[in-house]
Amino acid sequence: MQIKSVWDGNEAIARFTPRPYHTAVPGYVYGGLLASLIDCHGTGTASAAAYAVTGREPGTAPYLRYLTASLRVNFLKPTPLGPELVIHGRVKEMAGRKVVVEAWIEVNGETTVQGEVVAVQAPDHMIEALLNRA
Amino acid sequence: MQIKSVWDGNEAIARFTPRPYHTAVPGYVYGGLLASLIDCHGTGTASAAAYAVTGREPGTAPYLRYLTASLRVNFLKPTPLGPELVIHGRVKEMAGRKVVVEAWIEVNGETTVQGEVVAVQAPDHMIEALLNRA
Repeated sequence: MQIKSVWDGNEAIARFTPRPYHTAVPGYVYGGLLASLIDCHGTGTASAAAYAVTGREPGTAPYLRYLTASLRVNFLKPTPLGPELVIHGRVKEMAGRKVVVEAWIEVNGETTVQGEVVAVQAPDHMIEALLNRA
Repeated sequence: MQIKSVWDGNEAIARFTPRPYHTAVPGYVYGGLLASLIDCHGTGTASAAAYAVTGREPGTAPYLRYLTASLRVNFLKPTPLGPELVIHGRVKEMAGRKVVVEAWIEVNGETTVQGEVVAVQAPDHMIEALLNRA
């Protein structure tokens, strides 16, 4: 997704404006994209929180990257295609390498999607693979 | 996703081979794509089942299209990038306009992703929008 999350010490917020090809039903955003945004922002929020609780500068080595163990997404109402989406993430629980994040998507001030991500800290060999890619 | 599902009277099966750009961690398929495949195949399975139980030819009018109300995805293990993915769907429950589908993704004979989709029959105005698109 390449979305950028902003962490305010409690909640992480990301913004994304879907393009016309992100549609299945005309006029609405495709559910798979919305699930991907929840997924991506969930692991991003977990990482931001992990840096924050250890008082470290985000994105510095040794890297704290997270993978999704499970994802739950409830589509509360159709998400209109056009306006910017605001994706929120808030840590519900941190235990060892596991972080549970609740995430939701807001458009025009209304929440259309609500979800939860269980994120697990990535093993070191995966982080090395990420760093070594072209 | 534009994947094609095959219905055998009990289970729907779809096949999809991810491309190199469907990656986040090198060598593995991106979780957002896997969630999208579960989502897409879940509603496809619901539709196939709805035609089947009414003894109707799939894809004929009046159309039985389904939208995702909720999605749950468990990433059991990393999904390697390269081989074809086989996506399975099986109806767990049908009640009125709602169909619950369990879906899973198999690669090299191993299940790497397991999920559940609650699909709801699309309202007529959405189906008309789909038919009228360019």
